[in-house]
Amino acid sequence: MGGNINGRILTLTTFGESHGSAVGGILDGLPSGLKIDLKLVQDELDRRRPGQSQVVSSRNESDKVEFLSGILDNYSLGTPIAFLVRNKDSKSIDYSHLENTYRPSHADFTYEKKYGIRDVRGGGRSSARETLARVVAGAIARQFLSTFGIEVYAYVCSIGKIRLSKSYNQVIPDNIESSPVRCPDKNVSDKMIELINKTAGEGDTLGGEIYCVIKNVPVGLGEPVFNKLNADLGHAILGINAVKGFEIGSGFNAVEMKGSEHNDSFIVKDGKVSTETNLSGGIQGGISNGQDIYFKTAFKPVATIRKEQKSVDNIENTIIIEGKGRHDVCVVPRAVPIVEAMSALVIADHILMNQLSNMDNLRK
Amino acid sequence: MGGNINGRILTLTTFGESHGSAVGGILDGLPSGLKIDLKLVQDELDRRRPGQSQVVSSRNESDKVEFLSGILDNYSLGTPIAFLVRNKDSKSIDYSHLENTYRPSHADFTYEKKYGIRDVRGGGRSSARETLARVVAGAIARQFLSTFGIEVYAYVCSIGKIRLSKSYNQVIPDNIESSPVRCPDKNVSDKMIELINKTAGEGDTLGGEIYCVIKNVPVGLGEPVFNKLNADLGHAILGINAVKGFEIGSGFNAVEMKGSEHNDSFIVKDGKVSTETNLSGGIQGGISNGQDIYFKTAFKPVATIRKEQKSVDNIENTIIIEGKGRHDVCVVPRAVPIVEAMSALVIADHILMNQLSNMDNLRK
Amino acid sequence: MGGNINGRILTLTTFGESHGSAVGGILDGLPSGLKIDLKLVQDELDRRRPGQSQVVSSRNESDKVEFLSGILDNYSLGTPIAFLVRNKDSKSIDYSHLENTYRPSHADFTYEKKYGIRDVRGGGRSSARETLARVVAGAIARQFLSTFGIEVYAYVCSIGKIRLSKSYNQVIPDNIESSPVRCPDKNVSDKMIELINKTAGEGDTLGGEIYCVIKNVPVGLGEPVFNKLNADLGHAILGINAVKGFEIGSGFNAVEMKGSEHNDSFIVKDGKVSTETNLSGGIQGGISNGQDIYFKTAFKPVATIRKEQKSVDNIENTIIIEGKGRHDVCVVPRAVPIVEAMSALVIADHILMNQLSNMDNLRK
Amino acid sequence: MGGNINGRILTLTTFGESHGSAVGGILDGLPSGLKIDLKLVQDELDRRRPGQSQVVSSRNESDKVEFLSGILDNYSLGTPIAFLVRNKDSKSIDYSHLENTYRPSHADFTYEKKYGIRDVRGGGRSSARETLARVVAGAIARQFLSTFGIEVYAYVCSIGKIRLSKSYNQVIPDNIESSPVRCPDKNVSDKMIELINKTAGEGDTLGGEIYCVIKNVPVGLGEPVFNKLNADLGHAILGINAVKGFEIGSGFNAVEMKGSEHNDSFIVKDGKVSTETNLSGGIQGGISNGQDIYFKTAFKPVATIRKEQKSVDNIENTIIIEGKGRHDVCVVPRAVPIVEAMSALVIADHILMNQLSNMDNLRK
Repeated sequence: MGGNINGRILTLTTFGESHGSAVGGILDGLPSGLKIDLKLVQDELDRRRPGQSQVVSSRNESDKVEFLSGILDNYSLGTPIAFLVRNKDSKSIDYSHLENTYRPSHADFTYEKKYGIRDVRGGGRSSARETLARVVAGAIARQFLSTFGIEVYAYVCSIGKIRLSKSYNQVIPDNIESSPVRCPDKNVSDKMIELINKTAGEGDTLGGEIYCVIKNVPVGLGEPVFNKLNADLGHAILGINAVKGFEIGSGFNAVEMKGSEHNDSFIVKDGKVSTETNLSGGIQGGISNGQDIYFKTAFKPVATIRKEQKSVDNIENTIIIEGKGRHDVCVVPRAVPIVEAMSALVIADHILMNQLSNMDNLRK
Repeated sequence: MGGNINGRILTLTTFGESHGSAVGGILDGLPSGLKIDLKLVQDELDRRRPGQSQVVSSRNESDKVEFLSGILDNYSLGTPIAFLVRNKDSKSIDYSHLENTYRPSHADFTYEKKYGIRDVRGGGRSSARETLARVVAGAIARQFLSTFGIEVYAYVCSIGKIRLSKSYNQVIPDNIESSPVRCPDKNVSDKMIELINKTAGEGDTLGGEIYCVIKNVPVGLGEPVFNKLNADLGHAILGINAVKGFEIGSGFNAVEMKGSEHNDSFIVKDGKVSTETNLSGGIQGGISNGQDIYFKTAFKPVATIRKEQKSVDNIENTIIIEGKGRHDVCVVPRAVPIVEAMSALVIADHILMNQLSNMDNLRK
Repeated sequence: MGGNINGRILTLTTFGESHGSAVGGILDGLPSGLKIDLKLVQDELDRRRPGQSQVVSSRNESDKVEFLSGILDNYSLGTPIAFLVRNKDSKSIDYSHLENTYRPSHADFTYEKKYGIRDVRGGGRSSARETLARVVAGAIARQFLSTFGIEVYAYVCSIGKIRLSKSYNQVIPDNIESSPVRCPDKNVSDKMIELINKTAGEGDTLGGEIYCVIKNVPVGLGEPVFNKLNADLGHAILGINAVKGFEIGSGFNAVEMKGSEHNDSFIVKDGKVSTETNLSGGIQGGISNGQDIYFKTAFKPVATIRKEQKSVDNIENTIIIEGKGRHDVCVVPRAVPIVEAMSALVIADHILMNQLSNMDNLRK
Repeated sequence: MGGNINGRILTLTTFGESHGSAVGGILDGLPSGLKIDLKLVQDELDRRRPGQSQVVSSRNESDKVEFLSGILDNYSLGTPIAFLVRNKDSKSIDYSHLENTYRPSHADFTYEKKYGIRDVRGGGRSSARETLARVVAGAIARQFLSTFGIEVYAYVCSIGKIRLSKSYNQVIPDNIESSPVRCPDKNVSDKMIELINKTAGEGDTLGGEIYCVIKNVPVGLGEPVFNKLNADLGHAILGINAVKGFEIGSGFNAVEMKGSEHNDSFIVKDGKVSTETNLSGGIQGGISNGQDIYFKTAFKPVATIRKEQKSVDNIENTIIIEGKGRHDVCVVPRAVPIVEAMSALVIADHILMNQLSNMDNLRK
C-alpha cells in the first residue's frame, strides 16, 4: 500500500528514484484561479540544490522543474498540477559496489528486505532527491497561503554543538538567506561554517536543528481529534529524511514547567483575543489560536562518512565500507526549504478543511 | 472535514463528548478470526481511569466498555467492531460558569471560534475522556500484535524535574504497573509521587515524559515516503491531548553527534542481520529494521490549576478564573496506556499494509 | 480492509449485524451549527421499517434511534454524530438450520469463504438491516441539503412487470407516501399490490425499479475525473443490497439515440443558462449543470422464497432448503428511503467538496 | 477537493489536459517484484488510439508512453510508477471559436461555472484523452491479474440499434480484436460498420454498449458494505466519459424475474462449490463467488456532431454552432480498452484488499 500520497484535500503524490528518469509529483485539489508565479517555484527549488555555497556538496546540478498540466496562463485550472525534474549526471557513476552492501544507517537493508529488489543507484527512492517534488509543491502551497497573508519561514538553529541562543522572536528573517548555512546570526553562522569545514576534514558528518515559524495563521485550523494541526505538522516533518524529532511550542521544555508557568493567559490585544505568552506554539486543543505557530525539528548527522565502517553484505559477510563520491557534511541548511514546503502544504490543506467546519462559512 | 478517523487499513473512528451520552468508536478493517479476550480490553480501560491510585484524581468512575458488533463467540467477524462507554457522574456538576469563559491553555477558545458552538461540560470533545475509545481499540490491536509476537509497553520516564536516568534497556517492564506513577524504578517513582503531592498542595500541576518500546517488530513495516513508520507513529502520538514533542531513537540527541558516532553498524547476530547500536530506534529509511523501536514523548503540565489566573470571556472582558472540581495534578501516568494504544494501532495498521508490499508475499 | 466508510468529507462509518446488539454509525465531517430535527430522523427510519403496510413483512419492529454524540440542543457540534438502533425480537428465532447452509443468491457462501466465520443469525452483516444506519445519516444529510434548497425524493416505478409509464416530470411527489408501495399513481400502485399479493400466494418474490429525483442542485457539484457526480451516485446506489443496475439521465436508452437527438441544447431561461431537454440527467462532464438530477436503479427479486430450492451445505452435500420466517415478497417500496438516504449523503458530500473548487469561493 | 485519485490500495492519480504538455499518471501501491512487459502496455495504448481503423477518427496520433520511475529491469520496485504521454498535433488547431461557447452536452458550461477558468483546447481535462492514463495503468494491473490467472476482456455488444444477440458465453474472445468495431460476430460487426458509415454521412453520431467479462476471479473479493465489488466496479465504469448506465449480472432484466427464476442454485462442480446459473454476475452480497463476473455499460452518442445546433455563449446570447475538426462518429469501440483497464484496476485493488480480510491469510 503505497505511502506516496500526502494530504487530505490538497494531495501531493510523488514519484521518482534518485537515478531514474525523473522525480516529480501531482498536486491535486488546489482550487482554480490561483495565480502561480513559476519563477518563484524554480527559485525555491534552487534553494535546496547542492552546490549553492562553499559548505555544501559541490555537485553542480541545475534542477529545472517542468510543469505538465493544471496551469494555464499562470493560473491554476483546478485540475491536477503535474510536474517533473529530470535526473542528470548519473550515468558515469558506478554503483555496483553497493549492490550487495548495506550501508550503516542508510535504507539499503530495509528496502531490500521489504521489497526484495531495490534501485541501488544513489539510494533510489530513499534518496533525499525525492524531496524535490515536495519543494515544488510546497512553493505552490506557499503562494496559496500568501493570498491569506500567511508566511512560513525556517532557519537553522543548531549544527552539531553550535547553537543559536536567540528565540525565534529575536531572529530577523531577512538574515536567513544571506547565511550560507541559513542561520540568521552572522556570528553563529560563521562558527557553524567553521565546524562544517573542520568536520569535513575529519571525513565525518553533522546533524542539526531547524526552527520553523508560521505567521498570521487564522484561528480555527486543525481537525480534532486525530488530525490536530500539530499532529499533521509532525507527520509531515517526521516524514522528511533524517528527521529524528519534532516539538511544537514549548516542546520538551514543557516537561519541567508547572501549569502556572506554562499556561498562556488570554488577553485582549488590538481588540482581538490574544495570549500573553505563547508556550502553546499557536495551537490549543489541536486547533490554531491565531498566535505564531513555531516548532523545532532534529536532523541526525549524514550517514555517509569518509571513514571506514564495519557492515555486512547481503550474504551476511562482515565487510568494511568507506563512503565515496561527493556528499554533504551537513544537510541541515539544505533541509530548510523542505521543512518550509511540508509546513506550507499542511497549512494549506488545513485552510481548505477548515472552510467546511461551520455552516456559517458555507457558500449557498 | 472530520478528523475523527485514524489509520489507513485498520481504521478507528471515534465519537463522544465528555458529558454527552457516551464515548466510543468503530474499529474497521480488523481481519476475521482474531481471538479477542474482552476481559483484557476492559483491563486496559481500567488502567487509564482516574481513581486508581493515591496520586491521581479521586473521581470514582467505573467505565465499562460495551461491544455492539463485529465479535462473535470471542472471535472477530471481519466486520466493524463498534463499542461504547457510557458517561456517568456528570449531571450534578454545574458548568454554567464556563459557558462564557476561555480557560488558559485549554481548547475552549479555539473550539468556540472554529465551530461557533461547543459543549462546555467537561471540555466536550476536547476532553481526554475521548481517549477511552483509543484505549479500547488499542487493546484489540495489541491482541492482534501478540499473534505476531510483538510487544508494546510504555512507562513514565520523567515528571517535572524528576527523571529516570536508566536507558530503556535497563528497565524491567514488570516493574511498571507496580508503580503508582508507572515509573519502573522504585526510587524514582517515590520521588515522583512526592513531587506530585507537593505540587498538589501548591494547587499547581506537572508535565512529564513517556518512553515507549515496541519489541519484535518484523523487518519491513513503513510505507515511504510519506507514511514512514516513524511519521505515522509521530502522528498518532502528537494527536494525544497535551503532547508537545516526539522523538524516535536518538531523537534530539542525534543533533550533537557525528555520523561516525551515530551510525548503527550492521552485524550478524544469531544468524540474522542486526545492528551493533540502535540509535536509529529500529527504523531506517522509514522502515522497521527488526531492532527495538523506541520513542519518547513530552506532555505539558495539566492546564487546570487551583490558582487564580487571568483570562478573558467571550465578550472580551478580562476575568479571573480558578480551577474547580477534581482534577489530576499530573496525567502522565494515566497517559501510558493511551500511548501504548496508539502505538499498537499504528503498528497493526502497518503490519497489514506491509503484507501487500511484495508479490512474493501475496497469497494466490 | 474494511469497506464500512462512505464518503470523502462527510463520512459515514456503519456497524452492526442483524441480530447482534445494535446497528448504527458515526457521521463525521458535518459542519457545526446545522439545526437537526430529531423527529424527522426518526420519521425517516419509520419509513423503512417492516410492518408499515399490508404488503410488506408483518414483523412488528419499532426501531428507535438513539444519538450518542455530536448534537447539542438540536444543533450539530461539528464533532462526530454517533447513533445506534438496538436490535430486538431476535432471541426466539432458531438459526441453527442455516449454520451449514448456503442459501441461493444470498451472501452466506461468500461471507463464509471470505471471512471463515459468519454470524448466521438473520444474515449478520449482510442483512438489509444494516441500511438503518444509512437512513439515519441520510436523514441528517437531507436536513443539511434543505438549507441549500435541495430536495431529494424517490419512488417505485416498477414491480415485476407492472410499470409506471409516466416520466418523472409527470409524477406528483406528494402522492408517493400515500401509496403502500410508494408508486405515485393510484392505478399502477393498485396493480403492484395485486401482483405482490398474488406472488406471495405462490411463495415467490419480486424485484422492481426505483426512480430518484434531486432538485435544485447548484451548478458545479462533481469532482472529475474519478469522482464525477454520476460515478459517486452510482457507487452509493450500487452498494445497496439487491441493486443490479444504475442509469443516469437517458441511461441505457441513450444507446439507440443519435447525437442530434440526445444533445441537450443550451437555452437562456429566466435569465439563467438552462437546457431545452435534460437527457444528461443534470450532469455533464461529471459535474451538475443545475438541471434536475434523476436516475433509475434496478432491484433483483428477494432471494428468500417459500419454495424448495436445491443448494449445497458447507461440506458440499446437495441439500434442499425452503425459506422460513416472515420475509418481504418485494423490498423495493422499503428501499425508497434507502435510495434517498444514499443520494442525500452523496450530494451533501459534494456540496462540501465543491466549496473548495475555486479560489473565489474561499473565505479569507 | 481533487477527484483525480482512483482506488484504495492500488491508487492511480492522473493528470493532463488534452492539449497541454502531456497526460499521464502515478500508479502507487503496486507490490514490488511484478514482471512488467512494457511492450504489452504500449500495445494496450495503441488499442485506444484514433486512426486504428476506417471507422474511427483518422487523426494520426502515435501516443508513446514514457515511464519515469518505479520499474527497474522490467520489475516493479514497489515505489510509485509514473508515466506520461506527450501531447502532439495540437498547435495548428484554432480553438478561439470555443472560448465563449458552451457546446451542447459537453462539459464546457459545467467546467466554466465550477472553476471559473478552463482550457478550451480540445476539451482540456474533460477530453477523453485523459483516459490514456487509465489504459496505461490498467495494462499494468492486467499483468498483475494474470499472475493470479485472472482474465479481463470486453467487447461491443451494440451500436445504435444494431445489437449482438449472443450471450457472453457464446462469444469467442479471440474474435474481438479482428473486428474494426470490436464486436466478436462478423455479421453484426459488418452491420455496425455500415451504420457508422451511414451516420457519418449524415453528420450525426452514435452510442452503444460494451460487455465486460472477468474470468477466474477468486472467491472473496469485495469489501462490504460500501465497497462491494459491484459498487466499486460501477464507480470506476461510471467515471468513464459518456457512460450513462451500468448493470451487473442480470441487471435491469432482474426486475421482471421472480425469485425462483433469478436465484442461482448452488451445486458442486469439479469438487468445488459453483452455481447452476449465474444471474448474480459472479458477485453475491458484494463479494465475488468464483463465477464469471460480467457487466454491461451504456455509452451515449458522441456530443460533437456535424450539424447545426442551438446553444448559448458565455454572455447568454443564443448562438448556432456546428462541430468542426476530425471527430469519432462512435467512440464505443475505442472505449473497450478503457473499460477493461478500469475493470482490471478495480479487481487488482480488491485482490490486494482481500489479502487482509482473514487472520488465516496473513503472513507471519
